[in-house]
Amino acid sequence: MIDKPQTVSITLKEAPYEILIASGILPNIGGIAKSHIRPCRCAIISDEVVSPLYAQTLIRSLEEAGYSPLLLTLPAGESTKSMTQASTLCDRLIDSGLDRKSAIFALGGGVIGDLAGFVASIYFRGIPIIHIPTTVVAQVDSSIGGKTGVNSLLGKNLIGSFHQPKLVITDPATLDTLPDHLFNEGLAEVIKHAVIADASMLDLLPAIKGSKDLCALIARNVAIKAAIVSRDEFETTGTRALLNFGHTIGHAVESVAGYGTFSHGEAVAIGMTAALDLSVRLAGLPEESFHRVLKTIRACGLPTSIAAELPTESLLTTLRRDKKFDQGAIRFVLTEKLGSAFVSNEVTIDDVLGAIGRLRK
Amino acid sequence: MIDKPQTVSITLKEAPYEILIASGILPNIGGIAKSHIRPCRCAIISDEVVSPLYAQTLIRSLEEAGYSPLLLTLPAGESTKSMTQASTLCDRLIDSGLDRKSAIFALGGGVIGDLAGFVASIYFRGIPIIHIPTTVVAQVDSSIGGKTGVNSLLGKNLIGSFHQPKLVITDPATLDTLPDHLFNEGLAEVIKHAVIADASMLDLLPAIKGSKDLCALIARNVAIKAAIVSRDEFETTGTRALLNFGHTIGHAVESVAGYGTFSHGEAVAIGMTAALDLSVRLAGLPEESFHRVLKTIRACGLPTSIAAELPTESLLTTLRRDKKFDQGAIRFVLTEKLGSAFVSNEVTIDDVLGAIGRLRK
Repeated sequence: MIDKPQTVSITLKEAPYEILIASGILPNIGGIAKSHIRPCRCAIISDEVVSPLYAQTLIRSLEEAGYSPLLLTLPAGESTKSMTQASTLCDRLIDSGLDRKSAIFALGGGVIGDLAGFVASIYFRGIPIIHIPTTVVAQVDSSIGGKTGVNSLLGKNLIGSFHQPKLVITDPATLDTLPDHLFNEGLAEVIKHAVIADASMLDLLPAIKGSKDLCALIARNVAIKAAIVSRDEFETTGTRALLNFGHTIGHAVESVAGYGTFSHGEAVAIGMTAALDLSVRLAGLPEESFHRVLKTIRACGLPTSIAAELPTESLLTTLRRDKKFDQGAIRFVLTEKLGSAFVSNEVTIDDVLGAIGRLRK
Repeated sequence: MIDKPQTVSITLKEAPYEILIASGILPNIGGIAKSHIRPCRCAIISDEVVSPLYAQTLIRSLEEAGYSPLLLTLPAGESTKSMTQASTLCDRLIDSGLDRKSAIFALGGGVIGDLAGFVASIYFRGIPIIHIPTTVVAQVDSSIGGKTGVNSLLGKNLIGSFHQPKLVITDPATLDTLPDHLFNEGLAEVIKHAVIADASMLDLLPAIKGSKDLCALIARNVAIKAAIVSRDEFETTGTRALLNFGHTIGHAVESVAGYGTFSHGEAVAIGMTAALDLSVRLAGLPEESFHRVLKTIRACGLPTSIAAELPTESLLTTLRRDKKFDQGAIRFVLTEKLGSAFVSNEVTIDDVLGAIGRLRK
């Protein structure tokens, strides 16, 4: 017996969809999916960490609902998100008899969601996907909004598509098995949502793991992301750019330090620190707001500084390659008051370098 | 000095576009493109046959208009249409500094158009493409409608996307360098358009190569394809299915005989022969119409029969795998009167086997 799921809607013109959130919903997914996608030959795409924990429950539920699922378990980790893996997956789907009436269930974190979403978008020119996110980052962020992608040897997420899911089914109970450092990493995106849209969420961190408030907190994050995506499906109106808060410097730090040195969440935490610093200097954010967020970031076990030896030149080169960089200035997300944010075109490269300097231990 | 281009519009809700047709338009493409896509770093994707003939003219025209083009020349032939090639292309584009504001120009036949279109659809989640088709098949058919795709080891065009171009610029003068057998192969799609939408085009064949009527004939074909695509962008309303006339049996013959035995156009010619035969038997098409089209097919140097040894069992297996096959019957395009067509759900597998039997020499 589970609670009635909380439902958040994404209102898109062509294909609106819902995100259902309920602790313990996993064994009920087949019955729920059935009212959105006719039972069919389908694939579950998962990884070697998540599959042993939850795949059998999902398979049983889908079979009871009349689906005929094929389980594909991939190596865990960022390197799975490649064109080679996408190509291999397509071949395996064809070989197993999936066709244009088939569907994909993505069971896992951001890597699985991004890769499975990309495959769903190109298989027979697009088949339906249902996301079943099992990490904090996937539940509050990456499963929502239809961005799919794989990495190139030369950069992350440069290849991909927009492919909205038919449905997202989120079971916060799956987070119980998440190691603390991965759980905390995901909180970086919660803190981002708090800064740009709902500062009161900061008060719930870091003591949220295993708390009775977790399900509600996830639903609040989903609602924030869903509202932004609903206003800017294809990243063309500028609204979606607010989600880049902390990510410009974060991406540069992640790339220059070498992928793997900082997790994505850690890099975003560092990027948010710099963005808050610039918000104090350029947008009038009160100092106490800066310290309030920094305290939360640190309490979640996330970093707010970089090593002195991280080379400024490389950071600069990476920033100049950033798609938001244009002739000396960079489109940069600032906040003048916690719970709101705006895109500034007036942040200079010198401002950014100054903020990076102040990040050094 | 070239004639004013003939213009055909594709009226799509989100992103309507035009097909411009004029003999000798190739050196003017830069100036025309400029009013649709801001001059930028861009790529020309072509193959080893077409590139030596036309790439320099295109490069000069684009450079004069302010573009900075990168020429990528790929091996000619169907095997270039692969995920591996798509992946390599993406890496080369990234390495050469193309970003989300860049564009792709596809210069070549169907293989180049399908592959370049697919790459454009997944690069930075989609960048603009302009098609410059240089074969009959590409000019009258594959450059129009936004279907992109690559082949899997297990089947053709099973991986792909819908990605409409910004513009199609068609120069019938590029057909002068096309070998006769490739020119004639493309006429199979002209004959298809004649059967389903405009029978009077049959009178212009086969003496069209090098004729002053060629440009007008291409424009008529473009208009037919454009009208159908405008009514059914994503192949969901059924209208686009009419374009499958001759293709169901054609695909099966192409696949069972072994790719390379028959060209695509030859296989479609054989498929159309069978579809016309079934139209006489099941839809009341007059016998003389059947013979009129067969005479044209043969006059274009295209086949209307198969070897006795082509195994029925394999054809049947392939047909049963066809996505249009459903529980013993197959959605099959018939014509009751030349110049019109309809989708029948009443063609049985026995009907199809009978028609295939009558194809044998």
